[in-house]
Amino acid sequence: MTMDPNVLHNISYGMYVVSSFKDDAFNAQIVNTVFQITNEPITIAISINKKNLTHEYIAASKIFTVSVLEQDTPITVIGKFGFKTGRSFDKFKDTKFRKLDSGCPVVLDNAVCFLEAKVINSFDCGTHTLFLGEMAHSEILKQGKVMTYEYYHQVKHGGTPENAPTYIKKER
Amino acid sequence: MTMDPNVLHNISYGMYVVSSFKDDAFNAQIVNTVFQITNEPITIAISINKKNLTHEYIAASKIFTVSVLEQDTPITVIGKFGFKTGRSFDKFKDTKFRKLDSGCPVVLDNAVCFLEAKVINSFDCGTHTLFLGEMAHSEILKQGKVMTYEYYHQVKHGGTPENAPTYIKKER
Repeated sequence: MTMDPNVLHNISYGMYVVSSFKDDAFNAQIVNTVFQITNEPITIAISINKKNLTHEYIAASKIFTVSVLEQDTPITVIGKFGFKTGRSFDKFKDTKFRKLDSGCPVVLDNAVCFLEAKVINSFDCGTHTLFLGEMAHSEILKQGKVMTYEYYHQVKHGGTPENAPTYIKKER
Repeated sequence: MTMDPNVLHNISYGMYVVSSFKDDAFNAQIVNTVFQITNEPITIAISINKKNLTHEYIAASKIFTVSVLEQDTPITVIGKFGFKTGRSFDKFKDTKFRKLDSGCPVVLDNAVCFLEAKVINSFDCGTHTLFLGEMAHSEILKQGKVMTYEYYHQVKHGGTPENAPTYIKKER
């Protein structure tokens, strides 16, 4: 049986900041696995590691937002949201964001658009949970190309944190 | 509440042919929603419309393959797999493919690589099912850029069939 993990590098993704909240606390993290699943109603699935603080907040509030990052998002922004934990660092301190009517924050820095989704189901996938959300709000913020996962790796030379769905051991 | 469906055009996807089988019958269809969910084990999720023949075959055999399409895949190939039904048309008749040990076919035409997955769970998402498969086999076939959903729409001027997760009404 052949098993070439390089195949996984040929799957296409975008780069997103997923935000959620629990009571008065906000958190956000970088996610590349954001996908539309159905169109009637419009549902969006995201894969989140169970160890992440954002997982705890989405499970509690049943609401998340997705900010679609622009192509020239600074690597420092990916670093802030993707490689630090909200347990010991306030990711919203120097971040431009909006608090939606639901109470959920949405990150506006470097976002070309965003959507808000209300969780209607969650699927246990071992180390990760697939949250299925129905889109409740969506806005275009500006025109511009979005950052793809390929662009982040090939042009920005970015890495993948260990808790990501697409983390592959040889990146260690 | 604001709801701008154009936000959905800013989510990034690839372009794939997903194949499966039932007894001696093969079928395949175009899918853009293919994504890695976990890395230990390596699992892959795909969203398939319940009306599709490929859905019936995956539900029966619990096996599917994903062929990652190259950037310059002819629009006629997308048309064959994405806009015709295997109920009245043999999509494998003039297609280069391989039958894997499991019995599952994998399309080789215009594929830079492929993977095979064994279904370990399936999640009901209304009109679509999210099949979660554990990767069992994967091969690189050639080097080259992959086709993204954005490239297919913007450069190839391709459309989206009504059964796709990302079909949006205004495309009618």
